Amino acid sequence: MKIYTIGGYEEVGKNMTAIEVNDEIVILDMGYDMEAVIEEDNEIEEMTTKDTIKAGAIPKDKEIHQKSDKVKAIVVGHGHLDHVGGVPKLAGSYDCPVISTPYTKKIIQRMVREDRKDLNNELVEMNTGERRKVSENIEIEFVNITHSIPQATMIVLHTPEGKVAYSLDYRLDKEPLLGDKPDYERMNELGEEGVKLFIGDSTRIDEEGAGSSEKTVKTELKHTLNQAYNEGGGVFVTTFSSHIERLNSIIDVNNGRRKIAFIGRSLKEYTESGEEIDLIDLSNIEVASYHNEVEDLMSKISRNKEDWLVVCTGNQGEPRSVLKRIATGDYPLEIKEGDHVIFSSSVIPSPVNRANRYKLEKVLKEKGARQYKDIHISGHALREDNRDMLRMLKPDNILPAHGDTEMLASYAKLAMEEGYDLNDNLFICQNGNVLEI
Amino acid sequence: MKIYTIGGYEEVGKNMTAIEVNDEIVILDMGYDMEAVIEEDNEIEEMTTKDTIKAGAIPKDKEIHQKSDKVKAIVVGHGHLDHVGGVPKLAGSYDCPVISTPYTKKIIQRMVREDRKDLNNELVEMNTGERRKVSENIEIEFVNITHSIPQATMIVLHTPEGKVAYSLDYRLDKEPLLGDKPDYERMNELGEEGVKLFIGDSTRIDEEGAGSSEKTVKTELKHTLNQAYNEGGGVFVTTFSSHIERLNSIIDVNNGRRKIAFIGRSLKEYTESGEEIDLIDLSNIEVASYHNEVEDLMSKISRNKEDWLVVCTGNQGEPRSVLKRIATGDYPLEIKEGDHVIFSSSVIPSPVNRANRYKLEKVLKEKGARQYKDIHISGHALREDNRDMLRMLKPDNILPAHGDTEMLASYAKLAMEEGYDLNDNLFICQNGNVLEI
Amino acid sequence: MKIYTIGGYEEVGKNMTAIEVNDEIVILDMGYDMEAVIEEDNEIEEMTTKDTIKAGAIPKDKEIHQKSDKVKAIVVGHGHLDHVGGVPKLAGSYDCPVISTPYTKKIIQRMVREDRKDLNNELVEMNTGERRKVSENIEIEFVNITHSIPQATMIVLHTPEGKVAYSLDYRLDKEPLLGDKPDYERMNELGEEGVKLFIGDSTRIDEEGAGSSEKTVKTELKHTLNQAYNEGGGVFVTTFSSHIERLNSIIDVNNGRRKIAFIGRSLKEYTESGEEIDLIDLSNIEVASYHNEVEDLMSKISRNKEDWLVVCTGNQGEPRSVLKRIATGDYPLEIKEGDHVIFSSSVIPSPVNRANRYKLEKVLKEKGARQYKDIHISGHALREDNRDMLRMLKPDNILPAHGDTEMLASYAKLAMEEGYDLNDNLFICQNGNVLEI
Amino acid sequence: MKIYTIGGYEEVGKNMTAIEVNDEIVILDMGYDMEAVIEEDNEIEEMTTKDTIKAGAIPKDKEIHQKSDKVKAIVVGHGHLDHVGGVPKLAGSYDCPVISTPYTKKIIQRMVREDRKDLNNELVEMNTGERRKVSENIEIEFVNITHSIPQATMIVLHTPEGKVAYSLDYRLDKEPLLGDKPDYERMNELGEEGVKLFIGDSTRIDEEGAGSSEKTVKTELKHTLNQAYNEGGGVFVTTFSSHIERLNSIIDVNNGRRKIAFIGRSLKEYTESGEEIDLIDLSNIEVASYHNEVEDLMSKISRNKEDWLVVCTGNQGEPRSVLKRIATGDYPLEIKEGDHVIFSSSVIPSPVNRANRYKLEKVLKEKGARQYKDIHISGHALREDNRDMLRMLKPDNILPAHGDTEMLASYAKLAMEEGYDLNDNLFICQNGNVLEI
Repeated sequence: MKIYTIGGYEEVGKNMTAIEVNDEIVILDMGYDMEAVIEEDNEIEEMTTKDTIKAGAIPKDKEIHQKSDKVKAIVVGHGHLDHVGGVPKLAGSYDCPVISTPYTKKIIQRMVREDRKDLNNELVEMNTGERRKVSENIEIEFVNITHSIPQATMIVLHTPEGKVAYSLDYRLDKEPLLGDKPDYERMNELGEEGVKLFIGDSTRIDEEGAGSSEKTVKTELKHTLNQAYNEGGGVFVTTFSSHIERLNSIIDVNNGRRKIAFIGRSLKEYTESGEEIDLIDLSNIEVASYHNEVEDLMSKISRNKEDWLVVCTGNQGEPRSVLKRIATGDYPLEIKEGDHVIFSSSVIPSPVNRANRYKLEKVLKEKGARQYKDIHISGHALREDNRDMLRMLKPDNILPAHGDTEMLASYAKLAMEEGYDLNDNLFICQNGNVLEI
Repeated sequence: MKIYTIGGYEEVGKNMTAIEVNDEIVILDMGYDMEAVIEEDNEIEEMTTKDTIKAGAIPKDKEIHQKSDKVKAIVVGHGHLDHVGGVPKLAGSYDCPVISTPYTKKIIQRMVREDRKDLNNELVEMNTGERRKVSENIEIEFVNITHSIPQATMIVLHTPEGKVAYSLDYRLDKEPLLGDKPDYERMNELGEEGVKLFIGDSTRIDEEGAGSSEKTVKTELKHTLNQAYNEGGGVFVTTFSSHIERLNSIIDVNNGRRKIAFIGRSLKEYTESGEEIDLIDLSNIEVASYHNEVEDLMSKISRNKEDWLVVCTGNQGEPRSVLKRIATGDYPLEIKEGDHVIFSSSVIPSPVNRANRYKLEKVLKEKGARQYKDIHISGHALREDNRDMLRMLKPDNILPAHGDTEMLASYAKLAMEEGYDLNDNLFICQNGNVLEI
Repeated sequence: MKIYTIGGYEEVGKNMTAIEVNDEIVILDMGYDMEAVIEEDNEIEEMTTKDTIKAGAIPKDKEIHQKSDKVKAIVVGHGHLDHVGGVPKLAGSYDCPVISTPYTKKIIQRMVREDRKDLNNELVEMNTGERRKVSENIEIEFVNITHSIPQATMIVLHTPEGKVAYSLDYRLDKEPLLGDKPDYERMNELGEEGVKLFIGDSTRIDEEGAGSSEKTVKTELKHTLNQAYNEGGGVFVTTFSSHIERLNSIIDVNNGRRKIAFIGRSLKEYTESGEEIDLIDLSNIEVASYHNEVEDLMSKISRNKEDWLVVCTGNQGEPRSVLKRIATGDYPLEIKEGDHVIFSSSVIPSPVNRANRYKLEKVLKEKGARQYKDIHISGHALREDNRDMLRMLKPDNILPAHGDTEMLASYAKLAMEEGYDLNDNLFICQNGNVLEI
Repeated sequence: MKIYTIGGYEEVGKNMTAIEVNDEIVILDMGYDMEAVIEEDNEIEEMTTKDTIKAGAIPKDKEIHQKSDKVKAIVVGHGHLDHVGGVPKLAGSYDCPVISTPYTKKIIQRMVREDRKDLNNELVEMNTGERRKVSENIEIEFVNITHSIPQATMIVLHTPEGKVAYSLDYRLDKEPLLGDKPDYERMNELGEEGVKLFIGDSTRIDEEGAGSSEKTVKTELKHTLNQAYNEGGGVFVTTFSSHIERLNSIIDVNNGRRKIAFIGRSLKEYTESGEEIDLIDLSNIEVASYHNEVEDLMSKISRNKEDWLVVCTGNQGEPRSVLKRIATGDYPLEIKEGDHVIFSSSVIPSPVNRANRYKLEKVLKEKGARQYKDIHISGHALREDNRDMLRMLKPDNILPAHGDTEMLASYAKLAMEEGYDLNDNLFICQNGNVLEI
């Protein structure tokens, strides 16, 4: 078995791994790295594939591309850009289907549209709990896990040389509010059956302990919203647009007390995709995205701000987001003394995000708004969650991914604690390696 | 009105404040500072009052002592040592009652016993929600708040010059598991009636956001215990011995699955005091404190460790605690590969505690135990909780306490954000100041 | 004696303090706060005084302005913007001279020119070591200290009620490379004579130890430049434009090995002002500021980059600085694989600077340049330097300045260690307080 | 060529690597790990080799031991315990010489004595700059580098398969005060000749920039001592006992102003060894180690403390060190208000050291001593020094050592920046690996 560690082994971003067994290859994820383009004026949709690769934004798939005839499937675990963002650029040159859960498929479809390209690959839907043959020898299985976007999945490859479990981006939420909890039964079963290789998520490996539940965030949201409603004034919430579970919590917690507005392009797109497959109910929500729509809705809200709960984009303080532009006075809706701004998100740790949030918070403070921050939990497994996973799957070999070399090394330390030996059944790779086991 | 800032204005520890109005004085808290004696072999019970003061362990009450005839009452807010620990040393020289809630009274009684002294002061019980006249002009009111020990209270002094609210050590737990939630109604009412001075808790002022609920910790405890029980092996939990609410959560979460043992002197004492006033039910729990008792119970447990949940002292890694001594092999009960140790506490941030915990965790790791840490929330209000409190009470003047000068300054910054002016209606004092307002 | 704490008591920036004795007032510093305008597109030169005050960029001098007839002198300690930047906006409405050392005067003159205003105040030059009567009762003395700009001074006011020493922004460099070392003799003498009040610099109070010498930086610069010259390629250095001492070190350390170019507006202005009073010799240096000038010089350099040492603006990664624009390809001079970039500065800790530097460093890394960072020491006294100062001056009273409330509190803790008592002879004030001693 | 990564690849401590070429093996370093025994009462000298290995204190040499007939030499780079401490336990079972520089040899001899064992291995002295054949095919070369102990060396193995350069523990001090500066010429030459493998020092890889010079520390020491002498009172200095260069600086900087005492067992031993080979001149220094000697000297000093500069052990706050015991009043010499304590060392980052130093500093503060800390630079190469080294040696392959997995990974990131590829010509190993290149 050969493992091509194409992307995500030197950074958090642009994940891409390929597994080759008996001359058949399956590609796992095709992400892009937002950091790589953040400093430039380039809109990634406008860049050619070559330029995007050159900028370091998408994985260098050259080596695997030379064997493109062997590639039988591209399987995408969930809809975040660092897992799916490379599909519009790269998938077209492989003559094979792109397999994902329904919500992920909707995101792929939208990205292809925005990229103004045709993509000839068949987009195949598959639900967690299902299996599907993708070639003579390889079968794909989706095992339900939880993450901060709907319908994320662990991918299991059944091959003649054993099973490969790939679980980039997961957390173990024992009480999720949307979808089922992780399929512990199947994971334990896999551990009994034998897993030849596990590819694990290093993103939060350095955080001690085990992750909390989305239910906890909902409780915190409830107390925060109660506090804000008690004090009165305008109330603004911002979170990740693809975090449908969180948006549902906001709606629930509001409990009809105020009218709800969703404002911002990505918010509209992710939630409308979600509504199409019954993940969220937007029937009592006013959603605005285009300029006039936004202006009209804001004018309406500003006539009686205390009647509204405004959910909008801008949780990272992005300069052109709705929240930032409200704060700086670009819109008919104002933020003033006595208003409340709730950040149901954490700052993604990069100096640029920190500066953007700093500037936003500074303006909000000057305007006199009360701010509530970090009402959020990460979508990634913490150190003890990763240990739990290893103890369930009992893999023969471990390959940490989704981090830079030091984060992979930190994951390796955990595995060493659990009895694995570096360079024997535990591997630290970089982008472009080919590992044989 | 004169405020004597006797202790707790240059450290976290030895809290003591006195209020003088019309020649009548009420003393609020008489704590001692564990840090001050931690380095020495001194047992505080063996030290004279003078030595204790000299070592900096208890407040220098000289100035107020000179006016001891004016002192009408000593009021203690809750039973933690930094609030009550000075009583056996200092209270005796004031001819007045010591007023507290019942659980705090039990702790005072035990401390006096351990100090091998007589204390002539009457120990007066008063419940939250009650008021009591303590002198011609001053009335005391207890307003229910939540903390990490039972029956903690905000103290309100009703004086001819206005009300003083004193709330050292509180958090705003909207869903407590023992006792009532904070008396929001009364606090808001006090805000309407007018509060001349508020003395607030700076301990966690530097932590952003609002505190979570004990209920959240219980959920985390449940998941952790489930995980440990699923993996099998011995399970040990350690937490603060006076945190009866937490101990109840542990009992609840165990839900009869294993027999429970409580081992350690302080654990026995705090819980038995609690049981006497129906705060905890020990009827199905084996409690051991003295050496033989402990050895016998441990021998019994070691015969079938998987049948037991062992709750013991040692959450800070204290060298002579039960957990540390089990870990280092001092007892018939061992910790081995496959066992679990749950720290339902955080490390109190001092280099000595950090080193003790480091040593304990190192031994536990060598023995092969799986460790779960920080399953805990602080008993103190975070920054936004403190803001909530200020918005409820709307005090005319603010005096931050329970911290060193920089922590008081950080609280002052919060108050400045809320419109207060330093040296006008907001004051940073040091131990030994007399503030007139 | 009344002390008006007008600015710099809640932030690092916009320093301004006034001392009133017997109906005569002297103003010390008039700074502005770069942070306050950094987020906005406003150029401070274009803003009215009122707007600048409103934006929080310059001190609110309303209270002292009402007594403007009593103001006898404005004394400025050195030429950094947080001490002198408010002069063009505020000084004009006081009918009194502005007194400073010669280099500071040149900076004031340039700022007034850029502000396109007339300033009627007489600009009086005074050297360190000199004294001057400014009113019937008050005499000003300049005592030499060291800082990261030439001709910085401690200001001493001799008043009928005692001496006030004001030393915002100083470090104790025992081996400075430009100007004399701090006037220890005079400071000790002042301590003997008696100082009624000392106003001290809290900026770096939280850094343990004592500051190092500029001579140390020069040694480090030498080793770095040697390393870069040995490896070959283009060499770029960036530092603070007003840090003439550092620029001299760079010239010295180059020791004629390469031709030197100074590129950037502020670099030209600060160094030319310095040359006029013999602080730096630019005769062998090519200085460019205006666009064509810059382009021409760069074209020349790019013909043989290895012959040149390029000193340019951009040490904070400022988006429009010369270094950033070279890095992003805006100029005929390029940075490539094998080139060296030396940051003889530290990042001024603000999220915006951090993001700017991050972006710059990212581009430089992509281009393949080797980067050398933090070849610098702070211009501010560290904790032990501040203690040294207190032990020399032995002031009766201490007023920490140049920081937010927590930094002032940290300075207060140092003073408390040295035997001072808060609210007795040690004071924590906020902007707008009037302190009587 | 086979490389056995025996110790130091999962921790800072117990360094041991072996190189096998053509059936001949050379062992590089045999250290022990102080952390592993620090928590226990074990004195390492009293423990058997087996117990020491079991405790994790010395490397597991089993695999190489099975080939002990092939081992031709044990080469030790310098005298710190993490490089030489395992020699008394492990070297005896290899029938080959132990090769080192003279000062290292003296330390080995003392350790063997203390271990109360015979060691039959020949102890061979070799100076830096020299080469020596150790077997048919392998020649050893010592290349001068700088470190915080005298006569540290880079070890180069000349083998039929190419050169191996091993440089654990070095810094690049361009202006050392004892011994020569690093042999840049030879290192560059080695780079030209070709180095097959470089084993590099990861200890400080995470610190940006390049290290400063010991000369800088001497300047700082001078200013500190001047300050202390000016203030008067007793003056105590503590540093690492084996840091002869630093001790010389202290003597120089004192410049005859006060009489000097060296007090403490390790201080006596390391300096007397140094004096025997002319590294330090103790003729004007009073050295005391045994109890009576110490008491007598202290009594003498205490009669006129201001005449003396006391250098003593205890820089990490060790509970039984001389400084700690003076501070706690165990000796006739006291530390009082007005005295000075200079820590010419940094705290080795472990919670136990931090707690020890915390306790020591707390006592010193209570006694009223002024403390000066961190007058020190690390003995290890920082990130840019490591880059310089790679650019000089241009090795074909790189193996980071002297750190845990994450530190090795951080070194690997540096190497990747310099063009190396992980798992191709750059390797992250763990203890017990065998790498073939």
